[in-house]
Amino acid sequence: MDNSESDSSALQAVAGNGLLHRRIFLTRGAALLGATGLGLLTPKLATAQTLPELSNVPGAALSEYGTRSVFEDSVKRNNILSYPGTTGSGGSWTPLESLEGIITPSALHFERHHSGIPAINPDTHQLLIHGLVKRPLLFSMDALCRYPMVSRIQFIECSGNSRVGWAPEPVQKSSGGLHGLLSCSEWTGVPLSILLDEAGVDPKANWILAEGADSAAMTRSVPLAKAMDDTLIAVYQNGEKLRPSNGYPIRLFLPGYEGNASVKWLRRIKVTAGPTMTRDETAEYTDTRPDGSSLMFTFPMEVKSIITAPSLGRPMQGAGLYEISGLAWSGAGKIARVDVSVDGGRTWGQAALSEPVLDKAFTRFRAAWRWNGGPAIIMSRAIDESGAVQPSREQFIASKGLKRDYHYNAIQNWKVAPNGKVSNVYA
Amino acid sequence: MDNSESDSSALQAVAGNGLLHRRIFLTRGAALLGATGLGLLTPKLATAQTLPELSNVPGAALSEYGTRSVFEDSVKRNNILSYPGTTGSGGSWTPLESLEGIITPSALHFERHHSGIPAINPDTHQLLIHGLVKRPLLFSMDALCRYPMVSRIQFIECSGNSRVGWAPEPVQKSSGGLHGLLSCSEWTGVPLSILLDEAGVDPKANWILAEGADSAAMTRSVPLAKAMDDTLIAVYQNGEKLRPSNGYPIRLFLPGYEGNASVKWLRRIKVTAGPTMTRDETAEYTDTRPDGSSLMFTFPMEVKSIITAPSLGRPMQGAGLYEISGLAWSGAGKIARVDVSVDGGRTWGQAALSEPVLDKAFTRFRAAWRWNGGPAIIMSRAIDESGAVQPSREQFIASKGLKRDYHYNAIQNWKVAPNGKVSNVYA
Repeated sequence: MDNSESDSSALQAVAGNGLLHRRIFLTRGAALLGATGLGLLTPKLATAQTLPELSNVPGAALSEYGTRSVFEDSVKRNNILSYPGTTGSGGSWTPLESLEGIITPSALHFERHHSGIPAINPDTHQLLIHGLVKRPLLFSMDALCRYPMVSRIQFIECSGNSRVGWAPEPVQKSSGGLHGLLSCSEWTGVPLSILLDEAGVDPKANWILAEGADSAAMTRSVPLAKAMDDTLIAVYQNGEKLRPSNGYPIRLFLPGYEGNASVKWLRRIKVTAGPTMTRDETAEYTDTRPDGSSLMFTFPMEVKSIITAPSLGRPMQGAGLYEISGLAWSGAGKIARVDVSVDGGRTWGQAALSEPVLDKAFTRFRAAWRWNGGPAIIMSRAIDESGAVQPSREQFIASKGLKRDYHYNAIQNWKVAPNGKVSNVYA
Repeated sequence: MDNSESDSSALQAVAGNGLLHRRIFLTRGAALLGATGLGLLTPKLATAQTLPELSNVPGAALSEYGTRSVFEDSVKRNNILSYPGTTGSGGSWTPLESLEGIITPSALHFERHHSGIPAINPDTHQLLIHGLVKRPLLFSMDALCRYPMVSRIQFIECSGNSRVGWAPEPVQKSSGGLHGLLSCSEWTGVPLSILLDEAGVDPKANWILAEGADSAAMTRSVPLAKAMDDTLIAVYQNGEKLRPSNGYPIRLFLPGYEGNASVKWLRRIKVTAGPTMTRDETAEYTDTRPDGSSLMFTFPMEVKSIITAPSLGRPMQGAGLYEISGLAWSGAGKIARVDVSVDGGRTWGQAALSEPVLDKAFTRFRAAWRWNGGPAIIMSRAIDESGAVQPSREQFIASKGLKRDYHYNAIQNWKVAPNGKVSNVYA
């Protein structure tokens, strides 16, 4: 780096080790990079001889349903794991390290299935609403789709996402490999409140039970208040009908709640007085406290963020100016602020948040960093509109203990070595 | 319909022929449908015998890159047309009638290619910036991706979209078949302003020329002011890298401008004093006026809307309560309001706009209609934040004449017959 340039007021440092002011990403502000002559990061000076190749043969045909480039085949779900003797009972992780923006392509949405993906014919599938209601109702998919719908861009995160954070030594995986039981889509569906009102909920009711049509018959209890608030019977994802791996033809969608409760392949909603205490909410999906007792029904996913670039597998390529890019989200609402540190948490600067900043959705944040080529630890810390602050791993474990399996939301630290390699570290 | 129920204040009519107030779609308001007992649109009363089937075999496996349900195979691009002797020179239309929300799946994004889809290796592709600049620059894809990026959800519409509206008799196609040279995605890329500042634009420059690497070498001139404003070199679409049919590995993206100018498979940007007057902007993509003279460089796509449900191919199924759902967009900015009429334009009521309402993006609108089973003509009229109002076909032709091929933005009328069938009509 040329240090005479680093004094430019247009590229003001806001925290230690080269973190720059976020205004570089505000409207037209990014042009500062070029205008100050500090850009020239990586392009070559061109000569007349260097005009890139023009194809001289007709290209490929139009198609009914497009595909991606063969040069992108290496971008795939991470960690595909299924239980012994099965092919569909397990999980796969979204490759967050290869994606940008806030929409997760449906083909790369994470998976967590308990007995594989059922092949459901929408012409015969029905949704039953029964239990403590005036009139039990049965909806064909055509009948359901007559109802008014709403669309929202919102994340879904598995309750067990990032659980490797409890490992005694940091696991060396990409941002998606560590934290990719996490995706964000535009969901369109019918508000469950309409269907419950139509069935007529008994005043004694306080919970619902949702059951999937997969052979695991996934069953979860959900408070009636949530069901009557922002819960959807989701029919569309990212514009088209749900994919089979996301519950085709319909799934429950509980914004901000742990993913498992948003039951896929939904076949019935039973209105109940209390929680049903199913196997899926007693043997699993409970939070063990330091004293050995368990918390149940801890639905909302807490405020969290990760840096996706640079990250493990996306190394730095020599000293110079870099964009730090990452994702923040919270089950409590909108992201209010994201702080970034490039000196291991000693000093912090505010990241720029990409619009739109939506309720219970991914928010893409960006920060500018002039890396001097020395060792560095980079990290992000999200704050949501409720005021909740993402904790450090040390704070998180001090408060929640080491016996839990779910709801890990501590800060991710990436260590950058002088050779540019990035690794996962705890401190 | 039971007329005693139609008097309920919760379901107030706001315009003729059964159009209801939009508050039915505002937060929790949708529950009115059920709470007033006016719902019970279509479900059956259930008995204990009617619980839908539970799968009793393990489902399908986890996968690296997911696919949609085989039951959705009929949802495909419309009108796939290529010029005689070619397979890739032509267009395909997004099936808007089968989609919901505001995101178009990349696999169903419309296509308009002039010599097919080139197969470009990103490891060898480069972007040249030259012409009236201090230093011509050549960017590898890796070098380009070091620059700061921005993400935006924005539409792209072919200049020739909806041109069948000039046909003397209304063409009987679906909403996507008529208007589907139109899609909306989350685009992520590098602001062109940064790269131009880095190259150092000469004060004499007022335009740029953009050229694609396809064998048609698509070339378009764009005002420098637009290039320095909100123009992107797009790298990602809907989270993942661009698809080949959308310009992989990079395309120009000019928000709100006619799609053709957002040159795909971008290989160079030449900074120029004036427009280059290429074949693609002189022999085509000009607007013939009633007097036979032509307007050139009419870039912004004007305010427009269409109802996608009900629509041709999505018939009504008996008298009763329906949701009208559609899309509105404008190259001038955000959508301010959408009016809906169900009596052929005699009276209008305001539709509910789904959040988020974004700049130069699709806005999903919804209206509630109690159809009495009689003949009806339904239509939508969009107004953007600049105050521009979508014209009727009659107004549009009176003002613009019949000789044009581009920038058709008149109101779409759908006629609903008593048997529920929907057809395209001009009045």
